[in-house]
Amino acid sequence: MTINKGLDGVVAAETALSLVDGERGELVIAGYPVAELALNATFEATVSILWDAPWVAGRRALPESTIALLRDAARDRVDTMDALRMGAGTIRSDAPADVLAALPTIVAEYWRLLHDREPIAPRDDLGHAANYLYMLSGDVPSAERVRGLETYLNTVVDHGLNASTFTARVITSTGSDLVSAVVGAIGALKGPLHGGAPGPALDMVFEIGDAARAEKVLRRKIESGEKLMGFGHRVYKVRDPRADVLAAAAERLFRRDGDMQLYELAKSVEATALRLLEEYKPGRRLQTNVEFYTALLLHGLGLEVPLFTPTFAISRAAGWIAHCLEQRRANRIIRPQSVYVGPAARRWRNPAA
Amino acid sequence: MTINKGLDGVVAAETALSLVDGERGELVIAGYPVAELALNATFEATVSILWDAPWVAGRRALPESTIALLRDAARDRVDTMDALRMGAGTIRSDAPADVLAALPTIVAEYWRLLHDREPIAPRDDLGHAANYLYMLSGDVPSAERVRGLETYLNTVVDHGLNASTFTARVITSTGSDLVSAVVGAIGALKGPLHGGAPGPALDMVFEIGDAARAEKVLRRKIESGEKLMGFGHRVYKVRDPRADVLAAAAERLFRRDGDMQLYELAKSVEATALRLLEEYKPGRRLQTNVEFYTALLLHGLGLEVPLFTPTFAISRAAGWIAHCLEQRRANRIIRPQSVYVGPAARRWRNPAA
Repeated sequence: MTINKGLDGVVAAETALSLVDGERGELVIAGYPVAELALNATFEATVSILWDAPWVAGRRALPESTIALLRDAARDRVDTMDALRMGAGTIRSDAPADVLAALPTIVAEYWRLLHDREPIAPRDDLGHAANYLYMLSGDVPSAERVRGLETYLNTVVDHGLNASTFTARVITSTGSDLVSAVVGAIGALKGPLHGGAPGPALDMVFEIGDAARAEKVLRRKIESGEKLMGFGHRVYKVRDPRADVLAAAAERLFRRDGDMQLYELAKSVEATALRLLEEYKPGRRLQTNVEFYTALLLHGLGLEVPLFTPTFAISRAAGWIAHCLEQRRANRIIRPQSVYVGPAARRWRNPAA
Repeated sequence: MTINKGLDGVVAAETALSLVDGERGELVIAGYPVAELALNATFEATVSILWDAPWVAGRRALPESTIALLRDAARDRVDTMDALRMGAGTIRSDAPADVLAALPTIVAEYWRLLHDREPIAPRDDLGHAANYLYMLSGDVPSAERVRGLETYLNTVVDHGLNASTFTARVITSTGSDLVSAVVGAIGALKGPLHGGAPGPALDMVFEIGDAARAEKVLRRKIESGEKLMGFGHRVYKVRDPRADVLAAAAERLFRRDGDMQLYELAKSVEATALRLLEEYKPGRRLQTNVEFYTALLLHGLGLEVPLFTPTFAISRAAGWIAHCLEQRRANRIIRPQSVYVGPAARRWRNPAA
């Protein structure tokens, strides 16, 4: 009997949603190369393509009892992903349009509560991305910032059968509802082995601070055995196609509405890191991954590090829901087996009174 | 490439927690045949064996904001499993003892709110099972009733890699927390293909009402193609070993503290159903499953049908947590693959303005 703990190489689903080709460094979303879609479409258009039905955001506002729950959680300094999971669990509509619409409100209102500011109610006249930035800051964002966020949301919206998407499909396969699937997926995305940590990639850029110091700092890190954050990916053996898209989006944003020096510094750190990784680990093919430019782009949009993974979830939820709908169309309960390796034939003895 | 949508026959984990032998009709829990453990141990003892550490219930009381959330959900007549999932998502401790302790409080307080009664605070001087019955009714239960519930909780506490347990392990495999895993598993258990529907098995017994009518009613159901609820199981090809344990527990409970006529009626319905199933579907080996006597036993304990699946969850959560702890001890992220069957090489065109 073969035990496959990670289910590596096991094909558990057919999907028309995305194709991840790690060897060729390609990501196709519903037929579109990621760059093609991500840099051009609104998030609403991307969701509509994935769901194969026009998406108009449903109910964005939260019930009072959810806001009270988030307020109480903020007093306990609950982690932002835990707060998103808690809040998402209180969504009472099972309509895809409502479930997706509520998530940015949960994140933004929790973020403000966590910083002793009153939550800002959503505005229905703004798009999904614009409204999220508005609820965070209170300012209606510039077109450049909206474009930057939409490109990010489009880029990470779906990525094959990752662990959170698989979680959503397993839950759906029992005949359960969308909220259950999305809440389960948020819980999976929260795990550091999955949702990743774009924060440390940014910390590294700030730590280096000056392009002239990049080589010295990076050599020291590599020689002391430290892992360079933002490089390498389990699936992609060549450059993560999402890195290019996010780099282009970051350049555009920083050029028109940001700190161009920081962008140049990040480019320089990346070039030096790639050169040194090839020098120290030849043939390992460690390339820039999605986290490096995610960190730069989201930072440029004014998002702080604890908002990075929740913002990832806000996007990926559209992919999760698309997978749930796809799973339902040709469902079979997903139920692998375990092999028992415990003791045998124990007899129960009641403890002496 | 083989696509295995249900992951049938794929072995995804080694476990020392339970062994399900469907061909022989055996269930072993941590080395004990289910009958041995279920009829004798307290639930606390069973949990301690599964967790390999003494379990003393942690914090049973809920924060005010959780009670307010449940109160609001009750006004909307939210389903009991959805309310359990919502409430479980608000648990802020990641300690196994606390997570497991909070679940009966959520179910019982929600149940009372749903029926316009004030919730009853948990009592720390009662055992886990006794306290649950107390919070539901306000009465400290008899020893017979506590024994009946403990036997039920012990019987269904773990059952290999079912879909909810697998969900908990997938979420844990990303490095996520226990609450995320338990909330995801509740969402999976909620699905009608998994958590099952012990309610209809009971409805059938009530519909028959009189043993003399059993044959006529059951023949009509089978001949009209209706599925007999409470018979047949995906895994067990012989009698589900849990059915015997629960039948014994039900007999004991009804004999000492219940409606013995109902018990006799159920036994008679079961015998007639088995005889007719063999007559109409020879060789199909349709046997009494766990749902049939679950329904009878929980009904005897005074639980109404919408409490059946939440009560199942209260027990199985101990198994989920045990699997999470086991997964963490030898973790590998669980991430199967998908195969892309969607369109290729689409070009993005911005919609005409």
